[in-house]
Amino acid sequence: MELDFKKLDGLVPAVVQDARTGEVLMLGFMNAEAYATTQSSGEVTFFSRSRNKLWRKGEQSGHVLRVQEIRVDCDVDALLILVEAVGPGVCHEGYRSCFFRQVSQAGDATIIAERTFDPNTVYGKDARG
Amino acid sequence: MELDFKKLDGLVPAVVQDARTGEVLMLGFMNAEAYATTQSSGEVTFFSRSRNKLWRKGEQSGHVLRVQEIRVDCDVDALLILVEAVGPGVCHEGYRSCFFRQVSQAGDATIIAERTFDPNTVYGKDARG
Repeated sequence: MELDFKKLDGLVPAVVQDARTGEVLMLGFMNAEAYATTQSSGEVTFFSRSRNKLWRKGEQSGHVLRVQEIRVDCDVDALLILVEAVGPGVCHEGYRSCFFRQVSQAGDATIIAERTFDPNTVYGKDARG
Repeated sequence: MELDFKKLDGLVPAVVQDARTGEVLMLGFMNAEAYATTQSSGEVTFFSRSRNKLWRKGEQSGHVLRVQEIRVDCDVDALLILVEAVGPGVCHEGYRSCFFRQVSQAGDATIIAERTFDPNTVYGKDARG
């Protein structure tokens, strides 16, 4: 199975879902190297577009994502990764999931989750995974 | 709340999750117009990168995705859309979810779902949503 990295300039989106609860935790991007590293290490590793380098999720916080299962979509251009999420949450803002806000039809965002940890304690000021 | 369309040349990825079962059904992309149409119509509408135009999911098959809730991530550059999925499946290959294959650590893909409909009957030869 060859992933199609061409549609997105060398990247594929990877959806991370909690294998136990089904909660969608975050979405990141992988290049071929990040995907290979995720497969070989068993820990989710993205390509950080902002820092232009590999980013092992949890490298700073310890909140790593252990791969339970990887699924690929029909067009081989997107991944769904079922994980065991170590720690209280994946979001650098202190939530279990990065999708902690609901958007109304009018476009207003409302926080719908409780903070599960203090991001300043975990990340300091330079928060990123 | 303003979505950040800049990181991906005018698009944001949108993860579609079944609101009832929690199953991740597919991932698509929205430009600003597709997002606005999704919000105003209540039916998930993507921007088709291959056809370079808006694509109301289900326009051909009738398998539309009714929006139950929209969530946005911390960086406002990804969406999670909880839906009621009308019909037996979203995938043009005949499965409930587009993520119907599991990838082994060696990179081999194995089908892990049952077909829920015959894609040739629903789509004919020119299959696409």
